[in-house]
Amino acid sequence: MYRLPTMSINLPLINVNGVLDAAISPLDRGFAYGDGVFETCRYQHGSIPLWSYHRERLLHSAERLQIPVDESLLMQYLNSLLAQIAHSGIQGAVIKIILTRGVGGRGYRLPDFVKPTYCVGIFPCSQLQTDQYRDGVTVRVCNLRLAQSSALAGMKHLNRLEHILARAEWQDEFAEGLLLDEQGRVVEATVSNLFAVKNNQLYTPDLSAAGVAGIMRRAIIEKLAPELGIVCRIVDMELDFLKAADEIFLCNSVYGIWPVNQLVDDRQTTALSQTNYSEGQITHALQKQLAYLLGE
Amino acid sequence: MYRLPTMSINLPLINVNGVLDAAISPLDRGFAYGDGVFETCRYQHGSIPLWSYHRERLLHSAERLQIPVDESLLMQYLNSLLAQIAHSGIQGAVIKIILTRGVGGRGYRLPDFVKPTYCVGIFPCSQLQTDQYRDGVTVRVCNLRLAQSSALAGMKHLNRLEHILARAEWQDEFAEGLLLDEQGRVVEATVSNLFAVKNNQLYTPDLSAAGVAGIMRRAIIEKLAPELGIVCRIVDMELDFLKAADEIFLCNSVYGIWPVNQLVDDRQTTALSQTNYSEGQITHALQKQLAYLLGE
Repeated sequence: MYRLPTMSINLPLINVNGVLDAAISPLDRGFAYGDGVFETCRYQHGSIPLWSYHRERLLHSAERLQIPVDESLLMQYLNSLLAQIAHSGIQGAVIKIILTRGVGGRGYRLPDFVKPTYCVGIFPCSQLQTDQYRDGVTVRVCNLRLAQSSALAGMKHLNRLEHILARAEWQDEFAEGLLLDEQGRVVEATVSNLFAVKNNQLYTPDLSAAGVAGIMRRAIIEKLAPELGIVCRIVDMELDFLKAADEIFLCNSVYGIWPVNQLVDDRQTTALSQTNYSEGQITHALQKQLAYLLGE
Repeated sequence: MYRLPTMSINLPLINVNGVLDAAISPLDRGFAYGDGVFETCRYQHGSIPLWSYHRERLLHSAERLQIPVDESLLMQYLNSLLAQIAHSGIQGAVIKIILTRGVGGRGYRLPDFVKPTYCVGIFPCSQLQTDQYRDGVTVRVCNLRLAQSSALAGMKHLNRLEHILARAEWQDEFAEGLLLDEQGRVVEATVSNLFAVKNNQLYTPDLSAAGVAGIMRRAIIEKLAPELGIVCRIVDMELDFLKAADEIFLCNSVYGIWPVNQLVDDRQTTALSQTNYSEGQITHALQKQLAYLLGE
């Protein structure tokens, strides 16, 4: 079989409103106010797994923020980027789409005429390590508490200072940081959603007041768990419940599913505690189901 | 007396890292995550009133966000912009300073080496209308509730989606929108802080859980009110307290102090109510004191 020669491409490769390597206006409301949303997608073998979910979340979030989206334009820019890397030999990467309300004057008021900014980029992916899938990761409990905002909850919007401050609490000692809300309930981790297994029942935190409703979380709730005959309950989750769980795992669109082998609570306000989790059958079953979905 | 000829300058005029009309990288963390802070300052007759307060808030917020600031660089860029407009004939304008964590890779983690972005711009100012000072403005109660976050409260950071959504609730029928927190307490207005007068005592909401601690608010609490022998109490403020107040006023760095003549509560969840306020002696006294401070 004849193969096109691979072309060397340096990542990241970023396309702004259809123009490669273009820059952003300092008047862009994404820059001025974080006025927009984004998607972070896995790219593998020329396609984006779970694209229909990414697309739905992006459009739904834009609608909540009253940002008009020209989907054909978005797809044109995305396809143009995918075409550019199609013969590059790149197998695994991360696609990031940023959508903002575009250039606007000074002031919070929505511009009378909105021309959104579509920024589509492909980034190298360095996160995928086999031992994290197999042996699990260690997670700590962050000191930062997420604010509760029904207006913003669930969206992957560009207002990410809380997650940045939480991520700044540690260096490389832990794979992820668990985020609680101002009431002390479990919400998510900094770049992941979280699930717990207790007595063969699957649980994940309710995200109607805080957190990002992740694509992999949705895939687990709506596809992977039902395929295994498991029902997932969306609950208000206390940290004590998590500490008493049989299995915990994290998930996101890029790395998939990571078992958690240890939860470390070293917050200033609590006594140090370490909860260990043994290998989880349900976590492994979901990982297998995901690999099947991804054609791995 | 000889005057330099005035040069015509089109606003806005924006300087990014010392370069006029420069653009922002799509990898700038201000664009990607709203990872930064800003200041909006009044410019008049060649200077920025209350600059020492703006400077302090900017540096203090940057410190809270762990963004290293090279103050001499910031002042160099700001002074360069001020020099450019010094002979333009521009009397009143708005200076906006945006400081971000600069260019970084994908991911929330703080870059190992941070080179902040300093974006300094001057914008036209169209807000200053004599009748709003004299006769007061009408304010409505917004439906949107501000989230409570001790990590972010008080800062004028770049995560402004809540304020944008609140401002999108009305067009031009009202001068401002009052913002309550998730508990229903009064915090601020979309671009203003708020004060109430009851029995000759001055009150303003506590901002330790939500809101932007404005420069004019600080000037009123620390300078203008004490100069008049008035002590300001920082309190948890209920909406009913506001409705029963003798005077209410709004303030910010650009327009100064606006008396509120009517508060309209037309939220979906409440019966329509309109509270009218008569001319306020303390509000007027503070306006006079501010005019004196500004050399008007």
